[in-house]
Amino acid sequence: MEKKIPYKIYLEESEIPKQWYNVRADMKNKPAPLLNPGTLEPMKAEELGGVFCEELVKQELDNDTAYIDIPEEIHDFYKMYRPSPTIRAYYLEKLLDTPAKIYYKFEGNNTSGSHKLNSAIAQAYYAKKQGLKGVTTETGAGQWGTALSMACSYFGLDCKVYMVKCSYEQKPFRREVMRTYGASVTPSPSMDTNIGRKINADHPGTTGSLGCAISEAVEVATSNDGYRYVLGSVLNQVLLHQSVIGLEAKAALDKYGVKPDIIIGCAGGGSNLGGLISPFMGEKLRGEADYRIIAVEPASCPSLTRGKYAYDFCDTGMVCPLAKMYTLGSNFIPSPNHAGGLRYHGMSSILSQLYDDGYMEATSVKQTEVFEAAEMFARVEGILPAPESSHAIRVAIDEALKCKETGEEKTILFGLTGTGYFDMVAYEKFHNGEMGDYIPTDDDLKASLDTLPKVDK
Amino acid sequence: MEKKIPYKIYLEESEIPKQWYNVRADMKNKPAPLLNPGTLEPMKAEELGGVFCEELVKQELDNDTAYIDIPEEIHDFYKMYRPSPTIRAYYLEKLLDTPAKIYYKFEGNNTSGSHKLNSAIAQAYYAKKQGLKGVTTETGAGQWGTALSMACSYFGLDCKVYMVKCSYEQKPFRREVMRTYGASVTPSPSMDTNIGRKINADHPGTTGSLGCAISEAVEVATSNDGYRYVLGSVLNQVLLHQSVIGLEAKAALDKYGVKPDIIIGCAGGGSNLGGLISPFMGEKLRGEADYRIIAVEPASCPSLTRGKYAYDFCDTGMVCPLAKMYTLGSNFIPSPNHAGGLRYHGMSSILSQLYDDGYMEATSVKQTEVFEAAEMFARVEGILPAPESSHAIRVAIDEALKCKETGEEKTILFGLTGTGYFDMVAYEKFHNGEMGDYIPTDDDLKASLDTLPKVDK
Repeated sequence: MEKKIPYKIYLEESEIPKQWYNVRADMKNKPAPLLNPGTLEPMKAEELGGVFCEELVKQELDNDTAYIDIPEEIHDFYKMYRPSPTIRAYYLEKLLDTPAKIYYKFEGNNTSGSHKLNSAIAQAYYAKKQGLKGVTTETGAGQWGTALSMACSYFGLDCKVYMVKCSYEQKPFRREVMRTYGASVTPSPSMDTNIGRKINADHPGTTGSLGCAISEAVEVATSNDGYRYVLGSVLNQVLLHQSVIGLEAKAALDKYGVKPDIIIGCAGGGSNLGGLISPFMGEKLRGEADYRIIAVEPASCPSLTRGKYAYDFCDTGMVCPLAKMYTLGSNFIPSPNHAGGLRYHGMSSILSQLYDDGYMEATSVKQTEVFEAAEMFARVEGILPAPESSHAIRVAIDEALKCKETGEEKTILFGLTGTGYFDMVAYEKFHNGEMGDYIPTDDDLKASLDTLPKVDK
Repeated sequence: MEKKIPYKIYLEESEIPKQWYNVRADMKNKPAPLLNPGTLEPMKAEELGGVFCEELVKQELDNDTAYIDIPEEIHDFYKMYRPSPTIRAYYLEKLLDTPAKIYYKFEGNNTSGSHKLNSAIAQAYYAKKQGLKGVTTETGAGQWGTALSMACSYFGLDCKVYMVKCSYEQKPFRREVMRTYGASVTPSPSMDTNIGRKINADHPGTTGSLGCAISEAVEVATSNDGYRYVLGSVLNQVLLHQSVIGLEAKAALDKYGVKPDIIIGCAGGGSNLGGLISPFMGEKLRGEADYRIIAVEPASCPSLTRGKYAYDFCDTGMVCPLAKMYTLGSNFIPSPNHAGGLRYHGMSSILSQLYDDGYMEATSVKQTEVFEAAEMFARVEGILPAPESSHAIRVAIDEALKCKETGEEKTILFGLTGTGYFDMVAYEKFHNGEMGDYIPTDDDLKASLDTLPKVDK
């Protein structure tokens, strides 16, 4: 007899993963290395060490070790909010009247409101261990900044956050959460840095972008003793830390003998998607199992579906190393009216390579459809989702409705990365019918793609 | 050997209580009955039925049945967000360097952000079962209105919320959450009702009070076919539904053989405190165990510590029945600068009687001290607490610090009723040093207490 599956599957505290899983170890085609923007040669550990913490550089460059121990101090912090529940969407299934079985891994039950805390605490720990005074970073929607401020507060580190100006203005409450945890928050582009002043001069009235904010945070980290820069997505190390999401989700499903047919995640820089899929992708790469894996991105910022797979700058100021990734060009800035997050111009090198190798699919969805799905989900599942997460909800619903047509009982797993409590301005626009879709034209994309650096790799 | 206690104790889904516990059954001195404001005779079921749903009237009047079955439909909904965790505050203990063992029952992991959902879903269910079109209510900080809008959305009921004007203005995002769940939200006092127009005329520029909003909601319910009024606190029925908090907390602690010495809850109308303490109070009333039980109220609205135990109106408009309770007078309005919630002028009749009989203590705390405790807690426990809940945190910290002085290893349990994500305006004031304590003078209290109705009971 099938074991009755509860609404929420909670693992025991003792089942929080003790090791992260590094999907690169199972990739035949490794993600392309970061390049020095001057020499176009692969970045060496000592070069990266000027920007990033030592141990994180090791993790960034390690394409071979499959499992990496989670230090006890990080594991202790994980106990504050992990294991996170894997939830069977019984209410949503009923509403859709679908034979599909829908599960979601919910990462929003912590004050940062998202999965970002999983990597923030790791990065803060390694900074502390190295004896640093503090770290700098950028934040878009504010989830990463909040997560990092919580992590830094825990280890007594200084935390300087550069927040994309349009989010800073749309989400003043996020700033107060970060201040509650003792962080300083500056709208980007600011007048505090060389690159900020330059961007403000070149683009008067700009509402900022993640790329700008990264440039500012890197400049501050590299020009202040005892500081390093940390990043909440895109990097290999971040996907490594986020593997706890997938490891827990897989362990929870395994307990009930459930195997997903389709795994869906929203994708901005790739941290959530990469983390969620990692153990499943590992099985797929090793030929042990097959899964349909779908990356969902906003039609406003479609790096996988409309970008190029090429070396590009990670930041607008072009001070960072070059990464090979699906990109829209480092000076691409999505419409400030796009409220759904996932605004980064490029995609994690790991995911880009996996996508290029055909191990996963990608699709893009329009903002208004995303908010329709968000509201539908909130009403029946009782969780008001972040706009980011709602991209995955949209596609999960669409796939479940396809099952309704075909009668197939597919099992769908998606990542519910966070809650939307700080996104009510966007929900208000949606309720008032003032929300559009803001899709870049081919000419828009061509203009930014034309700025890609010329690299023969 | 002592069983290692995890950070978070989660019960199984199958351990969600199947029955509510009615503490009145174990009280020798029953709470005083509601009185008809005209005849001053106890309200009969048929009279109450014009305002409240039938089944809820039965629960309101039932002083004898100790356990009442939770209908399956409500139990199904509880599975959406219950069982809620009972958390060992290891991080806070370490920060305080106290020998005390601190636990808290956390009710904030749902979109309404608080425990209010426990009663909202019950009240919506009975309204639906009675074939009503919808319900009306008031909301202060917005937690109850949000909870009710979620519950009504689940059962397809119309939901009309009258929101205290100062909260409506301070918390616009709450309104959008309620709209996400399809509720209509009106700032109170409004110009839509007779009583609202009268209050606006008598007190131009008033920022409203729970008492005003209740009067408006009751007027709308009684003058529209197919509507009834529902209330999120104070009433006996609400404390009954909220007993799930205490039942789960006790079950979780019992699993580890833990017995609290001190139980602490914030108290506005009494719904959380009454729910949290109910099974413990039951043991105390039956002489099976002893617990020190502390109600914490804001110094801005000190009904237990500075009010009178007397019959009073439940609302400003004096349209509701009279309740015997600790009260500050039905026209008492706390300073609009008081941001900490818990603004109701009276206290649950059950808790008032228990307090009067000496079964519990009460204390009041100042707003700035409450926010200091909130920030301290957020930084180490990772949960940004609601200002309401932070009243309990303040006293839990103070008691733990006393243990540090005396070396006593007391076990403290407190109720963490919810999260403060919609209270960032108040946190911002606190961060900017713009927050005061707003304690009413003796003259203020005398003025409102002088308006108590003359009832010889």
